[in-house]
Parts: sequence; structure tokens; C-alpha cells
Amino acid sequence: MSNLVNRQIVLIEKPTEKLTRDHFRLVQGPVPEPADGEALLRVLYISMDAANRAWMQGATYRSELKSNAVMAGGGLAEVVASKATGFAAGDLVFADTGWRDYAALPGKQLAKLPRIDPLTHLLSVYGVAGLTAYFGLLKVGRPKSGETVVVSAAAGSVGSFVGQIAKIIGCHVVGIAGGGAKCEWLTGHLGFDAAVDYKQGGVFKSLREAAPKGVDVYFDNVGGEILEACLPQMNLRGRIACCGAVSLYDRAPPTTGPRGVPGLIVTKRLIMQGFLWSDFLDERDKAVAELGSWVKTGKLKVEEDVIDGLENAPAALIGLLGGENRGKRMVKV
Amino acid sequence: MSNLVNRQIVLIEKPTEKLTRDHFRLVQGPVPEPADGEALLRVLYISMDAANRAWMQGATYRSELKSNAVMAGGGLAEVVASKATGFAAGDLVFADTGWRDYAALPGKQLAKLPRIDPLTHLLSVYGVAGLTAYFGLLKVGRPKSGETVVVSAAAGSVGSFVGQIAKIIGCHVVGIAGGGAKCEWLTGHLGFDAAVDYKQGGVFKSLREAAPKGVDVYFDNVGGEILEACLPQMNLRGRIACCGAVSLYDRAPPTTGPRGVPGLIVTKRLIMQGFLWSDFLDERDKAVAELGSWVKTGKLKVEEDVIDGLENAPAALIGLLGGENRGKRMVKV
Repeated sequence: MSNLVNRQIVLIEKPTEKLTRDHFRLVQGPVPEPADGEALLRVLYISMDAANRAWMQGATYRSELKSNAVMAGGGLAEVVASKATGFAAGDLVFADTGWRDYAALPGKQLAKLPRIDPLTHLLSVYGVAGLTAYFGLLKVGRPKSGETVVVSAAAGSVGSFVGQIAKIIGCHVVGIAGGGAKCEWLTGHLGFDAAVDYKQGGVFKSLREAAPKGVDVYFDNVGGEILEACLPQMNLRGRIACCGAVSLYDRAPPTTGPRGVPGLIVTKRLIMQGFLWSDFLDERDKAVAELGSWVKTGKLKVEEDVIDGLENAPAALIGLLGGENRGKRMVKV
Repeated sequence: MSNLVNRQIVLIEKPTEKLTRDHFRLVQGPVPEPADGEALLRVLYISMDAANRAWMQGATYRSELKSNAVMAGGGLAEVVASKATGFAAGDLVFADTGWRDYAALPGKQLAKLPRIDPLTHLLSVYGVAGLTAYFGLLKVGRPKSGETVVVSAAAGSVGSFVGQIAKIIGCHVVGIAGGGAKCEWLTGHLGFDAAVDYKQGGVFKSLREAAPKGVDVYFDNVGGEILEACLPQMNLRGRIACCGAVSLYDRAPPTTGPRGVPGLIVTKRLIMQGFLWSDFLDERDKAVAELGSWVKTGKLKVEEDVIDGLENAPAALIGLLGGENRGKRMVKV
């Protein structure tokens, strides 16, 4: 292999604002020799994902990318030579190969794949994009037939599958995408019921028209202003599948402020769930009984802050908003 | 009843910024006569809740409060006279009585309560506060013994129950409250493991010290900056029970921007859930099989956008961030 060249694209500096070509450099090096337990891979296809940019902003579900290192990224590769148990020359694998011709990686970092036609489907519909759409929609969004599903970055790799799968389920599907051509493609070619072109502005209003019964499932790929436009249009007990926040990636990382919220939710796989106690009305008696047992055994202390006189109700509320009470405040009329 | 006075506190104008006493006026009127189907109630105790203020900002889980009307609010009341089936003089009920001495309300708006001692427990531990803490923590937060539970507005009616119940479950419990006296009360009297005084500033750092293993359940009563401080400290698969956003209530309503996010989540009982496809690894084979069947039957179209040449990878990613692709973009090395 020593007479072969291994081209590698190095992330020389992380962007502080928009990513440009100047943040990368193509360098050439030798093809690595696989160590014991490693396989030498010839990279065939590299997946391009908005997440690549998010990795430059800080730790996500992986550690932050380093400068002056080969750019990270998932790739479909063929084993050229193997010192890894279970892998042989000719095997097809998926791995974080990075952006390069050849990589030597430990066997445990490789996922063997079947050889199908076309091979590229292993990076699209049967790869991270297809599986993200499938699980995110069906397991997190949990749409029912007849419900309204909205997906952003709808013409992207994940979004285009989400909308189609939602149609298969029998949903009313609205895609949000940038530009008239993409929107026409969503409705004309992929069979979405409606599309909203966010570059036209007025997303809130356009979405209202496209989803007149409100939104049951919002599959969020973008965060930011489009999430904001969707939130108030969610129906009761709606589900927001937080998949990504691409609108926030190619810029300085969000500092403080809930603008960073959807990204954090994705990374940590958090559940934020709103509720009212009355959602659990069926179990009220059980709850009262259990609370009562805790009160009686002294495990639960009940602090009450009783303000005397109806006329003092305004001051009581104002004081509560200012944090002056401890425990349950009420006004004795 | 005609010689009795019915004092009523009217919300004469809704606040645009902070709530003050000038937004209310005490007026006197006659005691109402119950119509058919109604009961006349003597209000005993009125619940004071931060939500009272949120109701002035706009529609929540109830319609927005109106100006020049008796201030709405939940109350514990005694039936004085009844023309409502199933209610008799002397019955104790909970209802949205409003802030007044007497109210005549339809029977279907009344919830009959047992007469316990002390009566006030019906508005605290066995009322909305206790039930909100109980269900929100146990059903939404779902803490396990040994996990870390953080609750904000911890010295308030809901928060003080949340923390105590979490201790009963066997959790490490951190309360966030305003002022040293409240914090000492949380740890000294209620048995919380630690308390963070947000008025001291540096909530993020103090919380890190108080919850060194990270946060598994955050019971959010406040939204805003404290939510922001908690979010990055959540552990993988953490749960945020969105109960309220009191930090956002006593001011102009949040306009655009995800600052309004927690409030919307509460009102609509939304679930926002982050995920990665790999969370569902066990079901990958089934997913691939189903995706494959959809592809083969033409139900699912696979759009791929293959850029040729490793050297074009930077431009391919930059273009993707700018939205130039349709479907799955990859680079053919």
C-alpha cells in the first residue's frame, strides 16, 4: 500500500461564525498500516450531515471536534486488509472513517453491512437518515392515522423520509423547506399534502393554513424560529420529536438562553413534558390516600401560609409572585 | 340573604408589566340568588397561585381573564343554599369561586370534598398543590431511588411537596429558592439534601456543587434562567416535568422566542423528546425490513445527492448547511 496516497481533509480551525472552505485543508499522507485488531478501510462514500457542523460547536453526543485533525464523519467503506477478528478483505462496513481515502480502525468501531444495490442506500434509507426518520417519527412522534404531522428541513435526508413515512401511516403531512422548488418537490414528487416555504416569511400564518386542524406531531430538525412558529400551533398532547437544530449550527454556539434548548434536548435525549394534575384524575383517590399516609406518619410536612381577609387577596398574590411565601398560600375569606 | 354584603375583588385592568394593587378594586354587591341547578356558596378559603397571574397574560389551559370582572381563582366553599341536584346546605366544595364572599355556581362546576381537620389541607396537600407535586413528580419525572431530583420554587406550595416526596422515594434532592432563610428551611426543616439560593447568583455553579452527579429529574416551576442553568446539567435520559414558568408571569407576556417554550409545554401538555436513532438499536433489523418493503413497493422514494470527489467534501457540507441539497447528501470518495 505504500505507493498509494491517502488524501485527508483536515479541519484546520473551528469556525466561530459561518463555516467556510478556509476552515479545511486537503493534505496527503501515507496509507496507514493496520495494527493488531484493526482493519484497513478504503472509504467509498462519506455521509454529509448537518450534525457535522454541530460537532464543531461543542460536546454533543460525541466529544467536540479538534482542530488540526482529519475531519470526522461517517463513511461507507470496504475492508482492504484486516487484522481485526471477524473482518476480511472485501467486507463492507460503516464507521466514523473521517474524511479521507483510507483509515485504519479497530474492529469494534466497525459495523458490517450487507452488499446491496445501490450501495448508497446504506447511507440513506437504511443508514442514519432513514433510521432516524423511522424511529423518530414512529417511536417518539407516535402519529396516528388522520393526525397532522409537520416536519422541518423537509427536503433534507431525514425530513424527506419522515414526511413519506407519515403519509404511509395515513397522516396529513406538511413539510417546511426553503424555496419554491423544494416545496413543489415535496408535494408533487413525494406526496406531502402541503409545503411551507420558510424563505417567503410568514411561517406561522402559512403553517396555520397548511395545518388547519393544528399540529399533532412536529418533527423538529431545525430549532429556532421555525420551532417557535410550530409551538403555539401544537394540539393538546402533541409530540415534538427533537431531532436536530440545524438553524443554530452554522453560527456562533448559542450562549445562554433557551435558544439552545432543542439542541440540549437532542444531545441528552431529554424528555420535557408538560402536564396538569387533572390529567391524572383517575388516580386522584390513590394519590390522596398516599399523601395522607405520608402526612400522618410525619414523612410529609404541610406548610400553609394563610392570609386573613378577602381584602388582602391582591397583596397576597402580588407577594406570592415576589416570592414572599413558604408553602401553600391561601386567603381566609 | 339580602341583608348580607357580598364583597368582591374585581380585576379592573390587566397588567402589562408587574401586577400591582391598582389592578384590583374591592366592590360590594348583593349576595346572589342561586338559579335552578345552582348552589349558593360561602367562600371560606381562596387558593393563591402563581398561575393566577399567568391567566392574565393570555389563554392557557383556560381562557384569558377578562378585565372588569371578579378575579378568578379556586376556592374552598360551603354550600349555603342549593338548587343543584346532589348538593345540600353544609356541603363542602372546591370550585372556581373567584375572589368574593359568595358565589352562585352550577352544580357541575362543584367538586364535593370531605370535611377534614384542618380544612386548609384541602387546598394544600390534598388540593391542586399536593396533587400537582405528586403526579408531576411520580408520573412525569419518574424518579428512581438514588437519582438526583432538582425542584425550583422549592419553598413554594408545589415545590415543597415535590422535594419531600422525592426524599420519600429515596432521591438526592436539591431545592432552588430565593433567599437564605428559605434555603435553610428546605434543608433544615423539610429535609432536602441541598438548597441553592438563586438570589445569590451563580446558579449554574451552585447547582453543579449541590448535584455533583448531574440532574435526573428537574421539576420546573419557573422557566427562564433557572431552566437554562439546569438544562446543561441534565443527565442522559433526564426528565423535565414542566409545571410552570413563574419567572415569566409577572411581566409582559413573552413575545416571540423560545423563552415562552416552557409555558407552552405546560398549557398544551406537550412532550418534547430528544432522541438518536441508536437509542432503538434493538429494533434496527425490523426497521430496515419495513423501510425495505416500502422502498420495494414504491411507497418510499429515496432521494440521494451524491457529490463526487473527496476534495469536494468541504463545499458539500457548506452547501448542505446552506440548504442546497435534496434528500441524502454524500460524497463519493
